[in-house]
Amino acid sequence: MVITMIKNIDHMGIVVRSLDEAVRYYEQALGLPCSGREEVASQKVRTAFFQVGGVRLELLEPTSADSPVARFLEKHGEGLHHVAFATDDIYAQLLQASKAGCHLVNETPVEGAGGKLVAFLHPKSTHGVLTEFCSMKTKTGDE
Amino acid sequence: MVITMIKNIDHMGIVVRSLDEAVRYYEQALGLPCSGREEVASQKVRTAFFQVGGVRLELLEPTSADSPVARFLEKHGEGLHHVAFATDDIYAQLLQASKAGCHLVNETPVEGAGGKLVAFLHPKSTHGVLTEFCSMKTKTGDE
Repeated sequence: MVITMIKNIDHMGIVVRSLDEAVRYYEQALGLPCSGREEVASQKVRTAFFQVGGVRLELLEPTSADSPVARFLEKHGEGLHHVAFATDDIYAQLLQASKAGCHLVNETPVEGAGGKLVAFLHPKSTHGVLTEFCSMKTKTGDE
Repeated sequence: MVITMIKNIDHMGIVVRSLDEAVRYYEQALGLPCSGREEVASQKVRTAFFQVGGVRLELLEPTSADSPVARFLEKHGEGLHHVAFATDDIYAQLLQASKAGCHLVNETPVEGAGGKLVAFLHPKSTHGVLTEFCSMKTKTGDE
């Protein structure tokens, strides 16, 4: 039986060449105030955030040529990179996706920003969309 | 002065080769119930919708080789296609984007689905993201 555990979109990742130039575009053309910046050393990216209703736009600029985001930029150019769904139970969600034939980038969730658990599905098994699940740590995860 | 007129993301467009196969993925792997289907003859696409919190995912399958979506599919393959922002005033929003240097695909808004007004910004001027504005018809628009 299929269960609905996704309640909303947590964020969308957007790859850009220059964070400064892209932030200027989102602020001036779209009128969205930047709500924060952060460097994530483990992912080799600098990020800037914009809150739009319940969804966070996350701009990603690579800080190194061997960052996954740098490889995306080289292959595809700037643009939409991934969509992150907030799920009630990331373990059950991954199991459901796996049973449905998805290729899991993370077989088990890994620690993400803000104490969340995150896991990715490979875009080859999701009709082209790099898909992230995220959830707060749950009892299931702590067991 | 820059004004914030965007309150939320209305929908995200995702291009797929087969609507039936993609709907099956969203239903079975993600557990999202499909909330409707529609053929939009003017855009030469068949669409299927999924409501995720306040955001609608809109799957787009081309119905003809000369559909803009078919050209996207040929060039990029399946994947994220556009983001639509709901704005309080689409006319003022377009003016603000134009002043900030954006290339407007629609100089003035056109009629979209559900009686909305819509307009697109070209991805070359938006750091790679095909960007749509949409709003309900406003007084400004009726003048």
